[in-house]
This record gives sequence, structure tokens and C-alpha cells, in this order.
Amino acid sequence: MALGANSWGKSEVRVSKIHHGAGTDDFSDVTVQVRLEGDVAAAHTDGDNRGVLPTDTMRNTVYGLAQEHLTKDLEGFASRLCERFLTASGVTKATVSLWERSWARETATGFVGGGSERRVATVTRGSEDSTGSGIEGLVLLKTTGSAFSGFPRDAFTVLADAEDRLLATSVTAGWVYSSLPSDTAATWSKVRRALIDDFFARSSASVQHQGYMMGEAALAAVPEIEEITLHLPNQHHLPFDVSRFGVEWAGNVFHPVSQPYGDIRLVVTRD
Amino acid sequence: MALGANSWGKSEVRVSKIHHGAGTDDFSDVTVQVRLEGDVAAAHTDGDNRGVLPTDTMRNTVYGLAQEHLTKDLEGFASRLCERFLTASGVTKATVSLWERSWARETATGFVGGGSERRVATVTRGSEDSTGSGIEGLVLLKTTGSAFSGFPRDAFTVLADAEDRLLATSVTAGWVYSSLPSDTAATWSKVRRALIDDFFARSSASVQHQGYMMGEAALAAVPEIEEITLHLPNQHHLPFDVSRFGVEWAGNVFHPVSQPYGDIRLVVTRD
Amino acid sequence: MALGANSWGKSEVRVSKIHHGAGTDDFSDVTVQVRLEGDVAAAHTDGDNRGVLPTDTMRNTVYGLAQEHLTKDLEGFASRLCERFLTASGVTKATVSLWERSWARETATGFVGGGSERRVATVTRGSEDSTGSGIEGLVLLKTTGSAFSGFPRDAFTVLADAEDRLLATSVTAGWVYSSLPSDTAATWSKVRRALIDDFFARSSASVQHQGYMMGEAALAAVPEIEEITLHLPNQHHLPFDVSRFGVEWAGNVFHPVSQPYGDIRLVVTRD
Amino acid sequence: MALGANSWGKSEVRVSKIHHGAGTDDFSDVTVQVRLEGDVAAAHTDGDNRGVLPTDTMRNTVYGLAQEHLTKDLEGFASRLCERFLTASGVTKATVSLWERSWARETATGFVGGGSERRVATVTRGSEDSTGSGIEGLVLLKTTGSAFSGFPRDAFTVLADAEDRLLATSVTAGWVYSSLPSDTAATWSKVRRALIDDFFARSSASVQHQGYMMGEAALAAVPEIEEITLHLPNQHHLPFDVSRFGVEWAGNVFHPVSQPYGDIRLVVTRD
Repeated sequence: MALGANSWGKSEVRVSKIHHGAGTDDFSDVTVQVRLEGDVAAAHTDGDNRGVLPTDTMRNTVYGLAQEHLTKDLEGFASRLCERFLTASGVTKATVSLWERSWARETATGFVGGGSERRVATVTRGSEDSTGSGIEGLVLLKTTGSAFSGFPRDAFTVLADAEDRLLATSVTAGWVYSSLPSDTAATWSKVRRALIDDFFARSSASVQHQGYMMGEAALAAVPEIEEITLHLPNQHHLPFDVSRFGVEWAGNVFHPVSQPYGDIRLVVTRD
Repeated sequence: MALGANSWGKSEVRVSKIHHGAGTDDFSDVTVQVRLEGDVAAAHTDGDNRGVLPTDTMRNTVYGLAQEHLTKDLEGFASRLCERFLTASGVTKATVSLWERSWARETATGFVGGGSERRVATVTRGSEDSTGSGIEGLVLLKTTGSAFSGFPRDAFTVLADAEDRLLATSVTAGWVYSSLPSDTAATWSKVRRALIDDFFARSSASVQHQGYMMGEAALAAVPEIEEITLHLPNQHHLPFDVSRFGVEWAGNVFHPVSQPYGDIRLVVTRD
Repeated sequence: MALGANSWGKSEVRVSKIHHGAGTDDFSDVTVQVRLEGDVAAAHTDGDNRGVLPTDTMRNTVYGLAQEHLTKDLEGFASRLCERFLTASGVTKATVSLWERSWARETATGFVGGGSERRVATVTRGSEDSTGSGIEGLVLLKTTGSAFSGFPRDAFTVLADAEDRLLATSVTAGWVYSSLPSDTAATWSKVRRALIDDFFARSSASVQHQGYMMGEAALAAVPEIEEITLHLPNQHHLPFDVSRFGVEWAGNVFHPVSQPYGDIRLVVTRD
Repeated sequence: MALGANSWGKSEVRVSKIHHGAGTDDFSDVTVQVRLEGDVAAAHTDGDNRGVLPTDTMRNTVYGLAQEHLTKDLEGFASRLCERFLTASGVTKATVSLWERSWARETATGFVGGGSERRVATVTRGSEDSTGSGIEGLVLLKTTGSAFSGFPRDAFTVLADAEDRLLATSVTAGWVYSSLPSDTAATWSKVRRALIDDFFARSSASVQHQGYMMGEAALAAVPEIEEITLHLPNQHHLPFDVSRFGVEWAGNVFHPVSQPYGDIRLVVTRD
């Protein structure tokens, strides 16, 4: 038996980065795949790993170099990564692919995430009679204007206080009309706009705090609603500790994680 | 033993509709859930189905009423459906929920679907040296300007000729640079814009024909590309035959299906 | 500009088939992909479709030939399809891929679908005190022993009465313990076994009827439960009408659809 | 405005655990959801977080207590977690839900994961003639018999050498027949069995090493195959560092992560 074509790499490395500007931030949300080829036959046939750059190292390299090199020139960053991987002994070919999600700018430091948004309508008739509407999948992100500190600490608490952090959430909002507006589509847009504007306009001390203010704003905007239910899963973007690699963290490179997530639910009522 | 709370319904009924206008079409893409409660204890305990409106009938009702009643007033359509279901013998409560996806208008009859779009970059260095870019998940839909007719027929062919049909596809495009442009992000935008503009500007005789023209447009727009690879899965919106219900089909109600799909792939070269 | 490599095909064609035997049925659940190459340059450059076998015809061919040719010899069926597609004028290469899901035999005509099954536990303490358990994703299918007939008919009803049909569902079951059993894992297995055994042992007149009997069986098996909640989405396998192609339907070829689905929910109580 | 019903929690906390036994290990793979209610109105209305147990702490608590308390008595572990969360000041209600995936025992320390497995067949005819088969989604896990050490280290390498680690992968295997066997279904089962048996029988120094041996075993079992292609994504189960909480890690609690993953590909030929 003999070894044929082979490669090794790391797939689905997610990295996000704030490009801090003067008053205006830009934002990148990229998924990276690294694929290497080289002189690693002995690793396969004899278990000799001396030529096998660990895939964990590939991942770390992505974060380690992102702080300095990740810009909107994706091809440039990919090229920079390839060059780095080619310095590893025995590596003869490196392929790096990046997939960038788009975020639509809403404010100088705020973005709306693309695509999964849905308008929802729920109507019940018969033994019960109600007309409700809602939003699902409205993804909002701001690079500043959010804090979380002053929380209780116990033996399992390692989270640091954050006075200013990146906040992202996928808003689910729902409400039942106490009196049906004449134009439900326009009313829906009014609620959506109130939620978005408030999210970006007001700084918050927690997701709970942010959500409560958003609920207030929605109720203020639309008199036909008595209460609004909000579900605000926290789409965590964890600061990636590049100091392990002898680089000072510049406050701009993050690891977005989809599991687990903080799961915040609340109802805001007119009183 | 005894029966407790129960309900029956139909979930994930997908319906799309063209709102034909004078020169300008609007478009709705809705997923419907129907849930009924009523006097159906005997169905559970004795297998007596006389009170069980079939879930297939619920589905048909959605399509049957969509032609006349589905507008941007989702709550109105849901209410209309509830009322219809309450006319069924023994039904005491009907709940209808709708989820509407958003499509961004691009032209009078053209729309860009939200959200899954990605910019892709793939760079290889070492024993091979190439820089490539691409687009994934660019969803385009036009209500007119697409045909498919004149194809060969055999014993298994039942498809009717269509001289003007709705066309939707999720574009994947990829290319390798023969000479690297100075601004890859701007170049990417130029390719994307050429693909979108051409899709909406030119009528096609097939997905293949549409794709070939899009490829031509991309190559014309960007001299640094020698060839472009296109993958254009056909997101079928099947005309829903409402004539079975004694209603003449108005050419505007469709059943979007995700499985199976026509799978069109091609490369367009500079010659 | 010129046309480079190209192909067309149909992806994700789902077909299921009962292999009727003497007292024992076997079952196949296959997803098919067809990919053709041939002399279709004119379709791309001139919109001339005379050589373009429609992807809808490819789909129909899969169902049309499945009745006679789909066996556990997947490669043989794929080969048969390739040969058929090569008879189309101008087709020079045909590739057919099949993916078969596995179903574990449970009885002579009953199968358990693989894999997504989960054991669930939900415990609440504090202002409320409850211990509940459940099952998610238990997929059951039987080729016989299920009917649906005698239901009400209206203008939108086209469904035919079925005195014996294929029935498949993904069971979600949940219950709260009125008194906590000493071994919750063993008790969970007892409920699971009761649900499965009853599904396969008893014929039903509807999903509602099947579910009620399953609930009875679970309550009979486990005295610590007062009631059980069941969610039984109908995983429709639609008989595929091959008679359109001049072939008599043998009652064994189906089109499994994931959207929409009949959505049946009920609670069975101890009295 | 006023605050209505509210809760906070952590969803999709994934934890796996080896239950080490005398010669025989058992394995748990659980997803946890925590949901709390309590006196946190001030957090919503005033941004006062003194009562808000961080969701990150909830996550840590799951791992911190799993080492001692997670057994097959899921309800018992959920109850233990609830009690812990109720000790936090102001928390009045805790709900913990667990979802357990099932793994089928294959050896004393080896398991096959459920469900996504597919048998694949790919046949090409016309200008090319080939018959190939394959497996997708065969998930294998062993609690011992796998190492990864002796790899090169650079500035971005923080991975520790592991002389004995948990190894899990979702096997994709594909091969083309050089001579078609008379019974392709039986031959497929022979390849599958060879891959599984070898994975559990032989210790490996890396995924590459494991894969090469599996390929050798498949070729040895089936003479009609000249080479086999393997794709072995590493389903990482990261040791969770409970020492941060003053607990010594017992080598049995892991954090399974789906993103990113090591992506190992190879071909093994007859020579």
C-alpha cells in the first residue's frame, strides 16, 4: 500500500474584526479555510508528526495575523497567510479561502446583518380572537455603546467586566394588537424602525437593558400595541487573546461563536 | 385514558405570488402555518375522520385563496384563511401564521433575495500560484424576461413550453485573476454589478442562455479575468394549478420548491 | 467570448420505494443527482434548446424507472439511468449519483430512521418544581397498517381516500413525572419502547388515531406519568403518478416531501 | 412603561463526558439549556447588574459540575444544576433542559454516532465509464487509542502534546471499482466494516496515521478497489479547563466544538 494525494488544514475558522476609524468603524466577518500540502508521508505511514503543522496552529495564525493584516483586501490577507504557512518546514503548497458575510451600515458604528429577516403575522379566530405581528432574524451589531459589568461573581465566574464591548443579537419581536391599525404593513415597519434606531442610539449596561429600551421605543412609536415580547440571543464575539503569541491585543479581533449563546427574553408593557 | 388538548394543521406551506402592476411587479414570498382545534375527539379515540379537515385541504386552501387575497396585508390574508377554516364543520378555533421573506427591489420586475450572500477569496501559493475570487448565495429573481421552450420531448417529458416565466437562481460565480487588479474589493463589486445588471436587462431562453450572457457581461466589465465559472441552480417556482378548485389561474400564484432543483453549470471564456 | 466546460442536471431528487415481499417489506430511501454533458453550446450562445433534455424530464425518468429498476443495487440503478440519458440526442456523458439513508428494520413492515433521536430532560426548581422527560427525533415508518379516509370534503379537497398507506413520522414526546421513578433512564427506555411497539402493532385510521393509541400505550407502561404530549409531524411520502408515462403504478414508488407537512399534536391523559 | 415576564439563560452549552470504567468506558454527549427567573427588574430598567448571574457563569457551572455530577441520570444532573443556580442571590426559578445524543457502543471504548450515515453510489457512462461507491457521515469516536505529539512548534503553537486523547471523526470514504464486484451492496458493507474495525483496533499517532491505516484495511478487505479516498474532519472534543474553578480536571469533561475543525484528506493506493 502507498500514500496518494493528501492535504491537511483547518476549516470554518471564524474571525471578526473592527476596523476602528475616526468616529466611524468598519467591520469584517470572515470564515477562513486553510489547506496545506507538503512532505508528510511519514506522518501517514509511520506516525511521525515532525512535519505536521497542527491545525490548531493554523487557526491561531489566522487570529494572530488578523489584527495587523485583515482588511477589505481579502485576497491580500489570504496571500499573507499563505506566505506564513509556506515558512513551515516541508510545506510545499498552501491554499487559503475566505468567505465574507456582508453587513449593511446603519450608523457610524452600527450594522444590520443580512438576510434571514422575516416579517411574521399570526391571526387567531374562533374561540379566541387576536391579531399579532412580529419580526424574526433581524440581526443588529454595534462596535461600541454596550457594557456589561457589576454582575455578581461566584466560583465559576471568570468573565471580566466590560465597560464598552461589541454587541450583536438576532432580534425576535412579537406583539398582539389591542386595536388593529388600518395599515399593518406600515405599522410593522414603524416597530422595526423604532427597534433598530433605539438599538443604535442608546448605550446599554446589558442585553436586558438594551432590550427594555428597545421595547419602550416600540411602544412609544405605535399606540396600538400594549406590550411587546423580545427575544435577544447574544451573538457572542469573544475577544481573541493574541497576547499568547507575544502580540498586544488591539481590541479589534474577535472569535464569533454560535454555540453557546446568552438567551435573553423579556416583555415590555405599557405599564 | 382520555384525550387532552389537541390540534391539527399544516406547516411550512410555501407560496409565492407576483402582484402584477402596470410595468412594475411586486412580489410576495410567504410560508404559512395553519393550526385548527375542534370537535375531533372521535378521530383520536375511534378513528372517525368525519370532522378532520385534511391537512392537504388546508394547503390547497392557502393556494386557492392566495390568488385573490394574498397582498402585503399579511394579517388580512391570515384572517381570511381563518374565516374559511372556521366554516368547516366542528372547527372551533383557527390560527394562521405567515412568515414573509424580504426581497429587495432591483428593477421594475427584478428582485435580489436577502442575506446568504458571501464574497469569496481563494489564494494558492507554493507549487502553484493563483488568486481567485467569487460570489456565493447571490439570489436573483425576475417575474418576466425568461423562457424555456423548444426542448426535446420523450416519454417522461410532461413539462409545458414556457414563453415567459418567473426565473430565480442563487448565483455562485468564481474566477481566477490572470493579472491581479490593484483593488480586488472594487473589482469584485464590478463583477457582481455586471452579473446582476445583465440578469435583469436581458431576456433568456433558458438558464444556460441567461448564464452565458451573464458570463459575457462579467468578462466585458473586468479585463483581468480570462474566464468565469457559474453555478446557477434553478430555484423553481411552480405554477400552482388552482383550476382544480374551479378557479382560473391568473398566472401569479406559485409553489416554490427547494427539492429537487435544476442544476446548471458553465464556464465562459474570453475565447 | 466562448463557452467553456458546462453541464446540466437535476439535484436532490428524492425517491422512496417499498420492495414488497411475502409478509416482509424492504424499503429504500434515496436522493438522486443527475448530471449530463453534451452538444449544447447553441443553448448557451443562441438560446436553442433542441438539445437540452429538461431537468424536469430527468426527475421524471428517475421516478419512471424506479418502479422497475430501483433495488439495493444502487450502482445498477444508476447505471440504468445513465444508459437512458445517453439515448437522448447529443448527450455524450451522464453521471448519476445516489445517496441512500439507512432505516433499521424493527418489524416485517416497520423501520426506525436513523440518527436525529435525542433523549430530553427538563427540570424546574424554585417557584415551580417539576421533572419532565422526553424524546425528540424518533423517526418511525411503516409500509402498511395505516389509513386515512372518511374525512370531510370541500371545494379545495382533492386528496383520495387511502385504506392502506405508508406512514412515517418524527415523534416528539414529552411528559412530566407525577412521582419521580428511581431510574429515569430505564423509565425513559420503557416509554420509548411502548411508543415504538404500539406504532408498529396497531393499525390506525389517521395520525391522530395512531398517536392516541401510542399515548395510551405509554401511560399503560409507566405508572409515574399522568399524561403525555405528542407531536407527530406527518413525513409525507406521496405516491408518484407514473401512469402519466404510460406505466401502471405498482403502489411502491413515492416522492418524500419535507415541505409542507401535516402537523398533528395531542395530549393523552390518564382520564 | 413597565417590565413584564422575563428570563435569562444560556442555550446550546455542549458538554461531553467519558465515564471511565474498568476496561470499559461509557460516553455522554449532552446539550444543556439554562433558564433563570428572579429579581432582575433593575437590570432592565436601570442597567443595574448586581442580580444578573452572567450567562457565561451558567456555562462554566455546567462544565464545573459535570465532572462530578453528569451521569446517565440526566434529570439528576439537571436538578443538581437547578439547585446551584437557586443559590444565586435573587434567583427565584431555574429551569435546566438537557438533550442527549445517542452513540451506539461498538467496542469497550468505541462508539458509532447516530444517524447521518449515507451509502453513496456514483456512476458515469458515455465519454467516461466508471462505477464508484462511498460512505458519508459515518461518525466514529473512541475514548482512548489516539495520540498527537511531536509536531513542529512556532510562535502560534499553544497545543499541548497528547499521548492519549479522545478521537472523533465523521468519515467520508469514496472509491472507484477497477473491476465491478457481483454484489455491490455486500462489498460496500465489507469496506464499511473494515474502516470501523480498524479505527477501533489500532492506535494512531494522528488523524493522518489513523486514516492511512483505515485505507490499508479497506484495500486489504476488497480486491476490486485500487485506491480509496478518505476525508476525516476532526470532531474536536476540547478538554475543558475546570482547574480555573479550583477543581482538578479528571480527564473526562470536554467541550465539543463544531467550528473550526481539522480537515484531513488523503488517498491510499494499492501502491
